[in-house]
Amino acid sequence: MTQAVEQIEVGYDVPAMIGDRIEDIETPALIIDLDAFERNCTRMRDYTEAMGVRLRAHAKTHKSADIARHQMAHGGACGICCQKVSEAEALIRSGVTDILIANEVSGRRKVERLARLAKKARILVCVDNAENVEELSAAAVANDVTIEVLVEIDCGARRCGTQPGEPALELARKVSVAERLVFAGLQAYNGPAQHIEDPINRRAAIERSTELARKTIELLSANGIECDIVGGAGTGSHYLEGKSGIYNELQAGSYIFMDAHYGRVRGENNMQVGGFEHALFVLTSIMSKPEPGRAVCDAGLKAHSIDSGLPIVFEVPDLAYVSASDEHGVIEDPGHRLKLNSKLRLIPGHCDPTCNLYDWFVGVRHDRVETLWPVTARGKVY
Amino acid sequence: MTQAVEQIEVGYDVPAMIGDRIEDIETPALIIDLDAFERNCTRMRDYTEAMGVRLRAHAKTHKSADIARHQMAHGGACGICCQKVSEAEALIRSGVTDILIANEVSGRRKVERLARLAKKARILVCVDNAENVEELSAAAVANDVTIEVLVEIDCGARRCGTQPGEPALELARKVSVAERLVFAGLQAYNGPAQHIEDPINRRAAIERSTELARKTIELLSANGIECDIVGGAGTGSHYLEGKSGIYNELQAGSYIFMDAHYGRVRGENNMQVGGFEHALFVLTSIMSKPEPGRAVCDAGLKAHSIDSGLPIVFEVPDLAYVSASDEHGVIEDPGHRLKLNSKLRLIPGHCDPTCNLYDWFVGVRHDRVETLWPVTARGKVY
Repeated sequence: MTQAVEQIEVGYDVPAMIGDRIEDIETPALIIDLDAFERNCTRMRDYTEAMGVRLRAHAKTHKSADIARHQMAHGGACGICCQKVSEAEALIRSGVTDILIANEVSGRRKVERLARLAKKARILVCVDNAENVEELSAAAVANDVTIEVLVEIDCGARRCGTQPGEPALELARKVSVAERLVFAGLQAYNGPAQHIEDPINRRAAIERSTELARKTIELLSANGIECDIVGGAGTGSHYLEGKSGIYNELQAGSYIFMDAHYGRVRGENNMQVGGFEHALFVLTSIMSKPEPGRAVCDAGLKAHSIDSGLPIVFEVPDLAYVSASDEHGVIEDPGHRLKLNSKLRLIPGHCDPTCNLYDWFVGVRHDRVETLWPVTARGKVY
Repeated sequence: MTQAVEQIEVGYDVPAMIGDRIEDIETPALIIDLDAFERNCTRMRDYTEAMGVRLRAHAKTHKSADIARHQMAHGGACGICCQKVSEAEALIRSGVTDILIANEVSGRRKVERLARLAKKARILVCVDNAENVEELSAAAVANDVTIEVLVEIDCGARRCGTQPGEPALELARKVSVAERLVFAGLQAYNGPAQHIEDPINRRAAIERSTELARKTIELLSANGIECDIVGGAGTGSHYLEGKSGIYNELQAGSYIFMDAHYGRVRGENNMQVGGFEHALFVLTSIMSKPEPGRAVCDAGLKAHSIDSGLPIVFEVPDLAYVSASDEHGVIEDPGHRLKLNSKLRLIPGHCDPTCNLYDWFVGVRHDRVETLWPVTARGKVY
């Protein structure tokens, strides 16, 4: 960690130098089409402004302080979401000052770390358990800080979250009276629903979630507890929660990059949802041409995540990435287009875990490397 | 990269301090049971010694200089395999001096980087393409180094590799006459075959690969080209290639750790192959207990790779890890064993891409943290 850098070596230290042509980037590399990225940021800013809701952009997608700052300066974001304390630690060290951990934080050391962050930034966190409220309050008292708290309800995802209605009211009461905690509202995120590819089924699932949130808010209000924040939503459903009249803070993340899975999530016009463009690619090289019609590229399981399916070759529909091993991908090339060292752009199956594999984003514009952004919180999963 | 470290913070900088109890490690964390790891190393050393073959341990599994040095000092390894130039760069900077890139290396910058490494260490590399032989030779000449070369044949994996027999002979001839390249032998690795879970089908597949290697070696020998090295094999098949009389250098990697997939690869006695023990775990904490029988842990898709299946909860058979999202895992807990902050050891589905997610291995013995090893070549995929 303290090793001095005598010389930056392309390959070992960085995947490219500023000004390099795309074909000179060492592969596999994670590249951002900066024009498409900036357009995606502007689109989401305009959507949320038009719907009259706030955007709290989710940094778990990119884990980058540079991108978080861009979202706040130019993309209409009021603040940032993280999923982990270590992500927040990394982004706060890089100057981000308003972070919701859109997740539960428990355990002695983690809660202590969270409380220390509240000395440096506005910190919000979710709870779904009374024991956890006590942990958080004790750490806030010990560190002489205030932590804002959202009660998370399970609105259909069957992951974390207390049950809507009475259990949520009970927990909100507990937060409201806990020393050095401030009840800030409700977290009602239905992750699986926003990934439903069919727009009609997606709408129906989000409507059920929204109804659970609405009833809970009304119950809390009837008991004198008002929700300043009602948070949730993602790229696949932002327009549904945004127009619901219930949600006021959207937590979309993937819209800046998109991925092969989100490419299949259709908006109500049957276009790619939100009109967001593919802006993130794994640049890969053909490293073997063992027989006609089959090529092997240098991007395998350590270069992109296949949990949501295989990557797609960008803008070359007759090429197919058909299998991944640790360090290789097999490409079917029926038209014999590919040569040794040919470059391809792969749209990764799932952007979030793919970004987490890399130390650098390579920002490209007009076929040149314009910037290198560190993946600030890469590996910060704890 | 040049940031000075004023204070090591558990959580941000490291997942634990030396001497910590296991339950104090920040989770998710990648932990090694050092006793089991050392026994695995000794087992493979003894197997290869008994079979009269060399072990060139594959570092793509662990990407760790500390583990590579242990394998060479105590585990009988004559050298190390890498898959990528950047892995070799990282391990050579940490003192490893004998590396086979068990893979093709092509492209101007990559070949140049490889040739520079040959100034610092013994470097071997695979080829399957005549154009690549010319690239390598030109870079070796320009850097005034010698590079040893194995001709890779496709012995059944249908990934990289030239065809066995005449095409391999032609390529070996080309290597033999190329300036500053030394023909060192044959690479005949059948990855998919060594992962076949049934021992009888696995044996049959490896016998077919071995036969292709044997015929190619004989053809080369009949044409005056002798193979010093015949390399291949992995954890699932090491005893087949090792006893074949054809292979003389085994490239196993996963045997040091094992994983959930390799737990299903049975040896001929129907025991876990080679008697290797699970030595690698993702330590995870229960962070939510939303309803009876269901718990949520903090290890999701960024904490282990699910390309070869979901992880298994170690030594607690009635707990099941049933679904993974980016930052969460859902655990079925029919016996209501789990509490908030309970710790579990997960056997990851696939060890290699899981290690590549982490910055640190936490070495534990007798329930205490004994050592922290950096994942030296983490993210070095280029």
